[in-house]
Amino acid sequence: MDLVQVLKNIAPLAHAWVDPDVGPLEDAALLRPPGGSSLVFTLDFITPNVDEPEAFGAIAATNALSDVYAMGGEPQVALVICGFPPERLPLDVLARILQGGRDQCAKAGCAIVGGHTMQDTELKYGLCVIGSVSPGLALTQTHGRVGDRLVLTKPLGLGVASAAIRKGRLGAFDLARAVALMTTLNRDAMQAALAAGVRAATDVTGFGLLGHLRNLGLGSGLAARVEARRVPLLEFAPALAAEGLVPGGSRRNLEYVTPHARFDESVDDVLRLLLADAQTSGGLLLAVAPDREAELIADLQRRGTPAAAAIGTLVAGEPGSLEIVG
Amino acid sequence: MDLVQVLKNIAPLAHAWVDPDVGPLEDAALLRPPGGSSLVFTLDFITPNVDEPEAFGAIAATNALSDVYAMGGEPQVALVICGFPPERLPLDVLARILQGGRDQCAKAGCAIVGGHTMQDTELKYGLCVIGSVSPGLALTQTHGRVGDRLVLTKPLGLGVASAAIRKGRLGAFDLARAVALMTTLNRDAMQAALAAGVRAATDVTGFGLLGHLRNLGLGSGLAARVEARRVPLLEFAPALAAEGLVPGGSRRNLEYVTPHARFDESVDDVLRLLLADAQTSGGLLLAVAPDREAELIADLQRRGTPAAAAIGTLVAGEPGSLEIVG
Repeated sequence: MDLVQVLKNIAPLAHAWVDPDVGPLEDAALLRPPGGSSLVFTLDFITPNVDEPEAFGAIAATNALSDVYAMGGEPQVALVICGFPPERLPLDVLARILQGGRDQCAKAGCAIVGGHTMQDTELKYGLCVIGSVSPGLALTQTHGRVGDRLVLTKPLGLGVASAAIRKGRLGAFDLARAVALMTTLNRDAMQAALAAGVRAATDVTGFGLLGHLRNLGLGSGLAARVEARRVPLLEFAPALAAEGLVPGGSRRNLEYVTPHARFDESVDDVLRLLLADAQTSGGLLLAVAPDREAELIADLQRRGTPAAAAIGTLVAGEPGSLEIVG
Repeated sequence: MDLVQVLKNIAPLAHAWVDPDVGPLEDAALLRPPGGSSLVFTLDFITPNVDEPEAFGAIAATNALSDVYAMGGEPQVALVICGFPPERLPLDVLARILQGGRDQCAKAGCAIVGGHTMQDTELKYGLCVIGSVSPGLALTQTHGRVGDRLVLTKPLGLGVASAAIRKGRLGAFDLARAVALMTTLNRDAMQAALAAGVRAATDVTGFGLLGHLRNLGLGSGLAARVEARRVPLLEFAPALAAEGLVPGGSRRNLEYVTPHARFDESVDDVLRLLLADAQTSGGLLLAVAPDREAELIADLQRRGTPAAAAIGTLVAGEPGSLEIVG
């Protein structure tokens, strides 16, 4: 029995508020309380991957808010989840983490309305978020169609960057680049996605591009082809990954997808690991009609996600299977 | 700087959904999203205080749902927060905790719609909950009036019970009694409170009766008098507390309220500790008009909270100050 099996065995309770079409692979729950509004409800917390408390708070907040954006929603209110080791860290560090998260939420128009902070042996911080979504416009992983182009809005390699930071191996310039990406809200990407009539969406986080793409394929009942050379990567990530600075989660992701993936020989081991690299606060992965691909890319680039790129296509085939060409 | 100060220093963001009259001392946030519905939004998680996984899951769920009942709401949907040490505990234990929480939520009519489980050095489990509340009927801590009678719906001593369980000092009969109390939903108590037109409410949890009563007094701008002999106690709690089986949190609660409290000499040290005992999944503390006290007590006893008792009165005086008579 693994964790996924444990979670699957818990029978869901049917409830009038809960959209039954939103499957268990989604990033967040879609709720329709009485009165006509629709809500997105999600929760995420992480352990630190950077040293600066404000930056960690902002990254963790961006990461948690992303699950709302991935469903086409706008974050509205949030509760803090925090575990803090007071015997190891001064309270000032906690204050700075909370402030970093609070300021990032303010940028998103999201009010922190409370939360729960407990003594813990390991530092962790995150948010439970309620977002609003226009009824009928929620983005899910289930409506991708054959021929839809796959668009990724942030470069990969944030897991490798985190591993390098832990080992003190990321220079100041590259560190600033990684932090800037991890604190870029997926709001602009979401708004571009809605404007281009995107049919399916998810965010790329712990399971890496290939893991989340597999879930999107399973949700939509389709296979996917990835053009590896088109996938945007952090410039410094391949060299660090080649040195072995790869998180355990990224290696597990690659093991998880490999039985369902066919890699061209030209896709080398480092690139395979990067395609599976576990991201913290990664970008959105969008499935868009092919005749709107150019419009979506241009809009994303205009809105401040310059690395956005079309990286593949949804195709007919075994649902969730992946073909990765060079 | 202490934790309360850290949290106070984080400036709130004004937001159209957030009821500004609900102060920072409330158990949950009160939200008014567009469309006319009102929501209660809260989050709580705890470490185990009993050995049986299902019971721990049910207690943690009851404890988290209580924050919704304390505001007059009905829990609707929840997300799981879980930290689990897979190297120390089999996944079967996790499955049983999640099942216990899920089944308790089902009794409350609350659907678990997702969540976040992470590897952690310490086991912890809880919920982030959205509840519904009738607009204008939300219970807060701010509307108590001079002369309102204070009613407590569960006996005190659950913190002492938890300390005794940790030391293997609670017999099977008393353990069953404590678990039954900690898994009693505060729903019946909430419904009785609404029926009796209760003016202010909170639930008695980590700060103990005196700590939460102080907060209710601060919220309502009033002092409170407690008749210690009327406070319902778990039968076995005084003897265990006299042996020193008192959680550190209960001792800290007593230190916290002592500068604001005047105890009759007849209220001995053990009773003072019990009045401050940190409760897990404690009862509601209700302020009711004196001419409806008898109706409320009778209704509570009829609805399955037989220990419910009037324990004191809100009085004019320094807000948040406490007088404890024998």
